[in-house]
Amino acid sequence: MLSDHSDIESLRQANETFYEAFGSLDIDKMDAICEISGRALCIHPGWRPLSGWDQIRVSWQGIFENASLMHFNIQYLAIDTDGDCGWVTCVENITSVLQGRANNFGVIATNVFCRSDSGWKLVVHHASPNI
Amino acid sequence: MLSDHSDIESLRQANETFYEAFGSLDIDKMDAICEISGRALCIHPGWRPLSGWDQIRVSWQGIFENASLMHFNIQYLAIDTDGDCGWVTCVENITSVLQGRANNFGVIATNVFCRSDSGWKLVVHHASPNI
Repeated sequence: MLSDHSDIESLRQANETFYEAFGSLDIDKMDAICEISGRALCIHPGWRPLSGWDQIRVSWQGIFENASLMHFNIQYLAIDTDGDCGWVTCVENITSVLQGRANNFGVIATNVFCRSDSGWKLVVHHASPNI
Repeated sequence: MLSDHSDIESLRQANETFYEAFGSLDIDKMDAICEISGRALCIHPGWRPLSGWDQIRVSWQGIFENASLMHFNIQYLAIDTDGDCGWVTCVENITSVLQGRANNFGVIATNVFCRSDSGWKLVVHHASPNI
């Protein structure tokens, strides 16, 4: 199935909404863009994989509590859809202040989204250091 | 959309076919399980992302030429489908001989597949070191 142009654009917007939630360190915004389900899966760079929304949510809360600034400049490598599923691979160019220390670093992420009645929801977030 | 049990099983089989191709160091088998398209995307652990099948294929040929043994023990973390799209996140427990040196190491991979007339094809392979 070929991707519909409007699907690609709505998926790009969903991916940007995810990074807005991440950058605003706001767990309520993260709740809104993520799929709240047992199949949700998250791999933060260098972490062991987290399965199911409950432990993923705890990880976001921990990251947000330790960060005072998180700014994303997203470089898209791939963005595509197939029916009600879509995926984005992107480089996250990050400026952060974590535990009082400023950092600039890059992360490569593959984000898998599924469409729900309220739009695209992030199901899988696989992030790894951009070496 | 809930996943169909037979879809999950056929996707698991496709993922195993991918690792059989990888383990047999056989580019023809890799051609058969991968989507031969410009949207194909591959991130080998620690590599820069590769976009499009042409450069991905060259990377597999290079890996296969440098490896004399590659054995995979796959641990599944997630396997799910949504229509004609499916994704697998797994830990690749690898025993390899690369350039004459034996190694045991772990990799976390997220593999996105799309269904074609000839079955599931790998579109995105994002692999990162399992720390």
